[in-house]
Amino acid sequence: MKKIDVYLTQSLINDDLFLKDKNVVVIDVLRATTTITVALANGAREIIPAESVTIAARISKGLGKSLLCGERNGVIVEGFNLGNSPLEYTSEVIQDKSLIFSTTNGTLSITKSRLAKSCILGSFVNLTKTVEHMKSLEGDIILVCSGKLNAFCIEDAVCSGVILNNILIEEKDKYELNDSAYACLKLGKLLAMKTDKPSSEKILEMLNNSEHGKYLISLGFKEDLKICSRIDSYPNLPVYFNGTIKLPEKIESETNQKSQLKKIKISK
Amino acid sequence: MKKIDVYLTQSLINDDLFLKDKNVVVIDVLRATTTITVALANGAREIIPAESVTIAARISKGLGKSLLCGERNGVIVEGFNLGNSPLEYTSEVIQDKSLIFSTTNGTLSITKSRLAKSCILGSFVNLTKTVEHMKSLEGDIILVCSGKLNAFCIEDAVCSGVILNNILIEEKDKYELNDSAYACLKLGKLLAMKTDKPSSEKILEMLNNSEHGKYLISLGFKEDLKICSRIDSYPNLPVYFNGTIKLPEKIESETNQKSQLKKIKISK
Repeated sequence: MKKIDVYLTQSLINDDLFLKDKNVVVIDVLRATTTITVALANGAREIIPAESVTIAARISKGLGKSLLCGERNGVIVEGFNLGNSPLEYTSEVIQDKSLIFSTTNGTLSITKSRLAKSCILGSFVNLTKTVEHMKSLEGDIILVCSGKLNAFCIEDAVCSGVILNNILIEEKDKYELNDSAYACLKLGKLLAMKTDKPSSEKILEMLNNSEHGKYLISLGFKEDLKICSRIDSYPNLPVYFNGTIKLPEKIESETNQKSQLKKIKISK
Repeated sequence: MKKIDVYLTQSLINDDLFLKDKNVVVIDVLRATTTITVALANGAREIIPAESVTIAARISKGLGKSLLCGERNGVIVEGFNLGNSPLEYTSEVIQDKSLIFSTTNGTLSITKSRLAKSCILGSFVNLTKTVEHMKSLEGDIILVCSGKLNAFCIEDAVCSGVILNNILIEEKDKYELNDSAYACLKLGKLLAMKTDKPSSEKILEMLNNSEHGKYLISLGFKEDLKICSRIDSYPNLPVYFNGTIKLPEKIESETNQKSQLKKIKISK
């Protein structure tokens, strides 16, 4: 039996070693893991998550083609190039660039996974890719809902629940859920599914009624909620590896290049 | 509109001033708030919650007719008189005694409420009393689920949900729920209710399937789960006031006695 645990807000993970050697899936539906998935699909070279604005600014000094991205409480950080709206991350703006990314909750969940065995980013826009990856993993899995500051967010719990639902469809007897995973599964079925299938329409309704959704609407980001609700609209898999987030294809090709370079150097 | 917030585990409240001047309801279905309700119904004079075993031992030295009560990870603390099973708290054992009580999670939630405007203890066994009290309150309300160490517990969330359901039946438009309160309401309806009414039978099923319920069964406490599942079987309202937990009748009569004593002293 593989165990799946869900942590309902990143602040519950308060020990740097807690996620060491674990398989981790980070979820921040509104909006970090959605926006990062969109950004990589639209051609960003890599995303470098930074816990704080100061760390983000420090990293950017040492990088060439980079943009400072992120928000605090939904609003773009003063002096940064981009905020946290997926709509800002068009190919024209971000193609081949390194994005240094710092948000209120999402990037904290990600950087807390720096010692993980594997870490991917999940959301509704890459639901099936997330599920496929989780099925391929050996060992237990931890889902980290980013939450909002110190509190629970319904959208991250519901997204975890839909992911779990899709994993369990074929392989129910392979997994053991803890209490919070079980609660998320129930909430996902109830608030994001119609006739046993995940429904973008129901998800949008849930986002519109969520605390953080309402807050984002009040800031003028109603359109963002639509993007965040669309199942499998960006079928990519952001992988956090060695301090940066990239698509697996990119990590693989770079690793190949490096080993070829090594071979060339050795043969010289 | 009155706001109702639910905190899904006591560890999310990490600031001593957070509950200051708030109306608080502490929930620890398995088993602290159930056991304390049973103990007061069976004639205990008062319960003094203690954060740690050391503090509990220190308090007991200064008190006469007292018993040391509590557990760590479900098991009675070595050298203590009673554990945390409601079955131990019979009239013969506890009548008129002060119980110094220290458990892994429940008493932490309670002592974190020491600066609250009001603090009561809720569970399934005193469901209606809890709901009536909450309806009588002015101002916002915070429900604190004790959880298990740093994690979520399904039984506390479901109990919060049933409490919320019963509050909203008549006065739906008076209250505003945050995301976690909304999630608990959904979980309560799904896992503790039958044909729109709370059901002790469904609650027992949920407790038997919960992580902590299974753990308690493994320790031999299967009977405790039955007691904890019975709606309104101990219709009392434990109130945490001035460092101790008592029934409101007792607090009132003592306050009257004190004020009479004052009058006598003054008239002398």
